[in-house]
Amino acid sequence: METTTVNQKFDVIAEGTVTTPRGFSAGAVHVAVRTDWDKLDVGILASEVPCIAAATYTQNRIPGASLVISKQHLTSGRVQAVIANSGCANAATGQQGMDDAIALCQQTAGKLGIDPHLVVVASTGVIGTFLPMDRVSPGIDTIALSPDGGLDFARSIMTTDTRPKHIAVRAGGWSIGGVVKGVGMIHPNMATMLCFITTDAAVSQPFLHSALREAVDSSFNMIDVDSDTSPDDIALVMANGLSDTGEIETEHPDAETFTAGLKYVCTHLAKSMVEDAEGASKLIEAQVEGAASLADARLAAREIIRSVGVKTAIYGHDANWGRILSAIGNSGAQVDEYKVKLSFLGAGGPEVVVFADGSPLPYDLGAAKACLEPREVKIRVQMGLGDGSATAWGSDLTEEFVRLNSVYTT
Amino acid sequence: METTTVNQKFDVIAEGTVTTPRGFSAGAVHVAVRTDWDKLDVGILASEVPCIAAATYTQNRIPGASLVISKQHLTSGRVQAVIANSGCANAATGQQGMDDAIALCQQTAGKLGIDPHLVVVASTGVIGTFLPMDRVSPGIDTIALSPDGGLDFARSIMTTDTRPKHIAVRAGGWSIGGVVKGVGMIHPNMATMLCFITTDAAVSQPFLHSALREAVDSSFNMIDVDSDTSPDDIALVMANGLSDTGEIETEHPDAETFTAGLKYVCTHLAKSMVEDAEGASKLIEAQVEGAASLADARLAAREIIRSVGVKTAIYGHDANWGRILSAIGNSGAQVDEYKVKLSFLGAGGPEVVVFADGSPLPYDLGAAKACLEPREVKIRVQMGLGDGSATAWGSDLTEEFVRLNSVYTT
Repeated sequence: METTTVNQKFDVIAEGTVTTPRGFSAGAVHVAVRTDWDKLDVGILASEVPCIAAATYTQNRIPGASLVISKQHLTSGRVQAVIANSGCANAATGQQGMDDAIALCQQTAGKLGIDPHLVVVASTGVIGTFLPMDRVSPGIDTIALSPDGGLDFARSIMTTDTRPKHIAVRAGGWSIGGVVKGVGMIHPNMATMLCFITTDAAVSQPFLHSALREAVDSSFNMIDVDSDTSPDDIALVMANGLSDTGEIETEHPDAETFTAGLKYVCTHLAKSMVEDAEGASKLIEAQVEGAASLADARLAAREIIRSVGVKTAIYGHDANWGRILSAIGNSGAQVDEYKVKLSFLGAGGPEVVVFADGSPLPYDLGAAKACLEPREVKIRVQMGLGDGSATAWGSDLTEEFVRLNSVYTT
Repeated sequence: METTTVNQKFDVIAEGTVTTPRGFSAGAVHVAVRTDWDKLDVGILASEVPCIAAATYTQNRIPGASLVISKQHLTSGRVQAVIANSGCANAATGQQGMDDAIALCQQTAGKLGIDPHLVVVASTGVIGTFLPMDRVSPGIDTIALSPDGGLDFARSIMTTDTRPKHIAVRAGGWSIGGVVKGVGMIHPNMATMLCFITTDAAVSQPFLHSALREAVDSSFNMIDVDSDTSPDDIALVMANGLSDTGEIETEHPDAETFTAGLKYVCTHLAKSMVEDAEGASKLIEAQVEGAASLADARLAAREIIRSVGVKTAIYGHDANWGRILSAIGNSGAQVDEYKVKLSFLGAGGPEVVVFADGSPLPYDLGAAKACLEPREVKIRVQMGLGDGSATAWGSDLTEEFVRLNSVYTT
C-alpha cells in the first residue's frame, strides 16, 4: 500500500480501512433491506479478541432502537463485533425495533461464538420503517469475514453516499483504521453518520474515551451539510491491543501520537463526508483565529458553514461576504466588529481581505471570484480578541441537494 | 374598506396599513439605492404628534449602523417618525455608516420640524455597502407625506418581497396598523425583517413593551425560512394616543383586546412573510400541543419548520414523517417517544395519524399525500406531557430558493 508521511509521527495509508489494524476482519452482503437497492446493505466487523471501546452518540432525544441497544452494550466499555445495516434506521419502531436490534446482536454473536453483549448494532436509512428481518437474518448467515473485507464493510453502510469513505494511519508498531458513512442530515453534534474506528494498539479505556471525544469535537462536530441530525449517529472506536506496544494512557510515550493519529483519521473522514455531501459542488472551509476562546472559535466557524446564506452564495461564486459577517454576529461568539478581519484564501494564491476595521475594504472582485472558483473554498476570519482557533467544513447548498432530498422515501 | 369580524373583540381591515390609525401619514420615493432597481426604496412614516414606542431587535452581535442609532433614539421610549430604505443594509459600514444614519435622522427631522432623536432609521438590503447619500438625501426632500401613503411606504421597504405586506384591525374607537418586509434570512429571534406598527390608541410604555414582546414571541419568533438572521431586524410599535380612549395599561378594559389585536397583526404579518418566502411553494404550519411547557412547545414547533429535511420533504409532497419526529428529538424539548402522536391535517379534511405509541401506524398513503397537496400544509404533534402549545410557520426549501440566493449581489 502507498503511504504518505504527514509528519514525524505517523504514515497515512490512503487505501487503509478498518481491517488494516491486525486482528480485524469484515464482510458484507446484499439482502435488499430496501427492495429498490442492489448494493451491499448488511455488514459485520469483528476482532479476534474483545476490544476496549469508546463511543460518542447522537444528541437527538428520540434515539433509534439499534442505538439504544448499542449504548446499553457499550456501558461495559468492551466490544468485539459490529453488525450494521443501511436502508433502514430502525428508529421510531418501538418495541419491535428493540426486539429486532437484540436479535441482530444475538445472531451475530452466535455466528462468531461470542457474548451478545459484545456486539454493537448500527442502522442507518429511512426513519419509521421496520427491519425486514426475514431477509436480514438469512443474509447474516452468508457473510464471510476476511481481513480484506474492510472496504465491503464500508460499502455496506452507505446510503446516499456515492463512494466508500475510509483511511488508516500507521505509527511504529500499531495502526488506526476508520470508515464512515453520511452525506445528508449532517450537523455539528454528530450527524446521520456511522463511524467505526479500529486499532491494534492497546489503549486504556479512559484515555481512549478522552482521545475520541477530543478528535470528534474537532472533526465530526465541525461539519455541516444541512443542519439536521439523526436518531442513529454513532462514532465507535475499538482497540484490540494485538500490537503489543503496552497500554497507551496519558503518560505513555505514544500517547500524543495516538491522539494525533485518531484526530487525523476523524478529520479525514469528516471532510470526506462533506466532500461527498448530497448535491454539493463545494467544500467550504472556515478558519477562525484569534477568538476569545476555543469554544467561541468553534461557534463562529460552525455558524459560517451552517449559514444557508453563505452556502448559497458560495455555490453561486458570489463574494457576498456580508453574509459571513452576519453569520459570525449570529453565532453567539464574542465579537468586536472593529477588530474582525475577513478574507478569502485562494488555492495557494493571495489572500483577499474584504473587511477590516469595521468597514468594507476596496478589493479586486476578480481576485475574490478566483478564490471561489476551486472546489475547496477557504474563508479566514481573524477575530482579534484572543488565541482561540478552530476550523469547520461545510458543503454548499445547491438545487441538486433540494432535488435529492425532496424525493428520498418515495 | 372591507372588514371582517374575527371575534367579538375587533374587526380586520385587509387593506389596512400603518396609515389606517388616525394621525399617521407616509410617503416614499425611488432614488435608486441599488442602481439596478426601479422600485420605491426610501420611505417616511410620521405621526402628527410624538408617540409612545416599543421595539424588539435582532439578536445578531454585529448590528447594522442604522439599528445602532435607532436603539439609541428608542431609549427615550418616544418616536415620531421613521425613515427607512431598502437595497442597502447600512451594516458592516463602520463610522461612515453611523454618520449616514445620523444624517438621515437629522434630515428627516428637519423636513418634519421635529427633534432628530424622535426619528428611527431602518435599512435593509445588502450588507457591506455604503448608502448612496448623494441620491438618498435629495430623494428625502421630494417625499410627500399623506394619510394614503401607507401602501407606498410598505412598498419602499421591500427587497426580494414580491408584494407589500400590511394589515389593520379596529376595535371600538382605536385601530392598529402594520407593515412588514422580509422573505429571506428569516428565522426565530427576528429575521431580515423590518416591521412597523402604528396605533392611535393611547398606551402606557411598559404595557406597550410587554404586549409587543408577547406578540413577537408568538409570531415573528415562530417563523423560519432559512435559519439565518440579519443585522438590521426591528419590530417597532408607535402609539400616538389620538383616539382619546384613555391610556391603555394592564387594568384598562381594552387591555386584553389591544394585546389580542397586536398579536393578530403580528401573526398575520409573520405568516405573510413565510407565504412570500424566497422560492417557496408551501406554507408549513406546525402545531404542537401537550408539551411539558410553552417554551418546549415553541422549541419543538420551531425545529420542525426549521429542519431542512422536513422543508425538502414537504416540497416533494413526501410524507416522510420520520424527519418530523427526528426534528422533535433534535429540538431540545422534553419528549417521550411513546407518548408522541404525529399527524398531518388535511384542508378541512381528515386527520391522518402516522405515528403513535412509539411505532409507525399503518396509514392511507393517498390520504397523507392529499394533506401535502394544498399550498398550506399542517402538521400536528401531540406530545402527551403537559399543556404547552405553540404554532410555528415555515416555508419549504426549493430549487428556486437556491437559485435566488446564489445570485443575489452579483
